[in-house]
Amino acid sequence: MPAKSMRQQVEEYVLALQDEIVSSFEALDPNAPSFKRDFWTRAQGGSGQSCVFALPASDDDAPAPQSILEKAGVNISLVHGTLPPAAIKQMRADHTSMPLPENPQGGLPFFAAGLSLVVHPRNPNAPTIHANYRYFEITEPTNGEPDAEPKLLAWWFGGGSDLTPSYLIEEDAVHFHSTLKTACDAHGTVLFPAFKKWCDEYFYIPHRAECRGVGGIFFDDLNEGPHLRLADAEKRPRTPDEIFALMKTLGNAFVPSYLPILSRRHAMPYTPLQRRWQLIRRGRYVEFNLVVDRGTKFGLMTPGARIESILMSLPETARWEYMTELGAEGTEEGKLMQVLKTPKEWV
Amino acid sequence: MPAKSMRQQVEEYVLALQDEIVSSFEALDPNAPSFKRDFWTRAQGGSGQSCVFALPASDDDAPAPQSILEKAGVNISLVHGTLPPAAIKQMRADHTSMPLPENPQGGLPFFAAGLSLVVHPRNPNAPTIHANYRYFEITEPTNGEPDAEPKLLAWWFGGGSDLTPSYLIEEDAVHFHSTLKTACDAHGTVLFPAFKKWCDEYFYIPHRAECRGVGGIFFDDLNEGPHLRLADAEKRPRTPDEIFALMKTLGNAFVPSYLPILSRRHAMPYTPLQRRWQLIRRGRYVEFNLVVDRGTKFGLMTPGARIESILMSLPETARWEYMTELGAEGTEEGKLMQVLKTPKEWV
Repeated sequence: MPAKSMRQQVEEYVLALQDEIVSSFEALDPNAPSFKRDFWTRAQGGSGQSCVFALPASDDDAPAPQSILEKAGVNISLVHGTLPPAAIKQMRADHTSMPLPENPQGGLPFFAAGLSLVVHPRNPNAPTIHANYRYFEITEPTNGEPDAEPKLLAWWFGGGSDLTPSYLIEEDAVHFHSTLKTACDAHGTVLFPAFKKWCDEYFYIPHRAECRGVGGIFFDDLNEGPHLRLADAEKRPRTPDEIFALMKTLGNAFVPSYLPILSRRHAMPYTPLQRRWQLIRRGRYVEFNLVVDRGTKFGLMTPGARIESILMSLPETARWEYMTELGAEGTEEGKLMQVLKTPKEWV
Repeated sequence: MPAKSMRQQVEEYVLALQDEIVSSFEALDPNAPSFKRDFWTRAQGGSGQSCVFALPASDDDAPAPQSILEKAGVNISLVHGTLPPAAIKQMRADHTSMPLPENPQGGLPFFAAGLSLVVHPRNPNAPTIHANYRYFEITEPTNGEPDAEPKLLAWWFGGGSDLTPSYLIEEDAVHFHSTLKTACDAHGTVLFPAFKKWCDEYFYIPHRAECRGVGGIFFDDLNEGPHLRLADAEKRPRTPDEIFALMKTLGNAFVPSYLPILSRRHAMPYTPLQRRWQLIRRGRYVEFNLVVDRGTKFGLMTPGARIESILMSLPETARWEYMTELGAEGTEEGKLMQVLKTPKEWV
C-alpha cells in the first residue's frame, strides 16, 4: 500500500480537528443551538466546510439571549487550482525563502489545506480566540497528464493561535501561552520564542499603535530550507513529516489552551459598561482584519473566494466611539491597553 | 489690496460651510445635544476642526435614546507640509493628469484644504450621507525663503456627495440626484453625467459585487488641464476661480440635497427587523471604508494623521451575520439590493 501523500494526511487531520473543536464548544453549552455545518465547493477546484455559530436574530424586543458564544466560525478549506502570475509575484514577495519561478507563463498549480477559526464569546471577561493551521503546495504544470505525480516546486506550513481579551486576566494569558509553549517545545525550544515574537509583530494595528490582543504564536514559510526567523543551526522540524507533526501537536493543543479559560469566564457577571468596552474592542478587531490582515486581504481579492467564510471572523456587533473616554490609565480597561501598547512575555 | 490666494479663499469657504451644515443639523433637532467641536493642530503643519455628534453612551439598561442622528462627523482640515517621495509616486499613479516631477529629492511642499462629512441617522428609513470637498496644491520647495510666493507645480479640486440608504425610497434618491444635477448643470452640463458614473464606480465594494449606496457624484483631479473623464471640447470650469465656483455651488447644495430627506424620514415608525438590516448595511459601510476607500487608506497610512477624525466616518454600531437571510428578492430589503447590484439613473 503506497504511503499517503502529505495532501491527504493534512486533509484528514484538519477534518478530524474541525470536528473535535466544534464538538468541544457544543459540549460546553448543551442548551445552545448546534453549530451550522455548511459544506461548500469551489468552482475553480476544491471544497470546504464552514461550521458557524450564531443565535437566530431576534426581531422583537425580547431580552438578550444567553448562549456562551456570541458568534463563532470554524472553517476548513481544501482547495486547488492555478495561481495566476500576479499571485505568484505576491507570494514571491511574502515568502522570500521559496524558490518560486520568476515569471511562469500561465501560472502554476497550487494546493492549500487549512483550518481557520475565530470565536467571539458573549461575556466581556471571556477572550476572543483565533487559530489557523495551513499547508500550501505549488507544483509544476502537469500539461494535462492526469495521472502524473506533479513535481513539487515549493511547500510550506503556517499557522498560529492568538488571544484577544477585552479585559486583562493575567492567569488566562499565562495559561494560554504556557499551553502553546509546551506544544512548541516538544519540537524544539527555538520555536516558541520566535513564534511569540512573530505573533506580536503580525497582530499589530499600526494606525492605533497597539497589538490586537495579548499574543500567542504565529509562523509561516516553515519548510526544510533556511528560515528568516529561525537560526539555521538550531534543532527544529524540517522534513514534511516533522513539520506536520508540529502542526498536529499545535492543533491538538487548541482545546486545552482555550476551553478552560472560556469555562471559567463565561458566567461571570458583567456591567453594561463592560459590554460597551467589549464592543469597542471588537471594532478594533474589525479594523485589524479589514485594514491590516494580509490573509483577509488576499482572500477578499481572490476571484471565486467564498466571502462569507472569509468574513465569518468578524464579530456579530462592533462599536466605534469618537475619542472614547474608556481605556484611561488607572481603569480596568486601561490595564488592557497597557499590554496592547507594550507586549509582555507571559511565560 | 492684493487678491486673496486660492488657499485663503478655500479655507474661508470650508470654515463657513462647516458652520452652516452643523447648524442645520442642530436646528433640526433642538432637543438633542450640540455637536462637539474639537479644534486640533497637526505637529507637521496645519490644523482642523472636527464637529462630532454622538449621544453620551448609556451604561445602564435605560431605553434607547431618541435623537434624530445616531453618529455624525463634519470635519475640516487645513494642512500643509512636505509630501515624501513615496507619496508623490502614489499621487503620480492616482492623478495621471498631473505634471508631477518623477523623483523629487526630499519631497515637495503641499497644501490641502477640505471638508468631509458622514452622517448616520438613527431611523432605518433615513439614509446615511457622505460629502467631501477638497483643494490640493503642490509647490516647488522655497529653500527657506519664507516670504517667497511658492511656484505652483500642480493643483486640483475634488469632491462629491453620495447617499447610502438601508431602504430604497425612490423619491429620496430622485430628490438627492436632481439637486446635485441642478448644481452641476450651472457649470456645464457635461459634469453631472460624468460625476454620477464616477460615483457609481468609486463607491463600489468588489468583494460584495455591490455599490455602497444609490450614488450621487464623485470627482477628482479637476484643473485646467485635460481630464481623463471629461471630453476636452466641452464647456466646463477650468480656471481655479471657475472650479472654486463649482465647489461652492456643490457645497451650498449639500443642505438642500439632504436635510429635506432627513426631515421627512427621521420620525417614521420602524421595526426591530428594520433596525437589524440597517446595522448589517452599516457593516457594509465599514467594509467599504476600511477595505476599499483610497482616501481612508491614504489617511491611515499618513504619519501624524488624526486617526479619530479619519475614522469618525464609521457608524456607532455595525453588524455582521453569516449568510443572513435578509435581502432576499421580493422583500423591501431585496429592493435595495437590486439597485446596489445594478446602479440606476435617477434623473
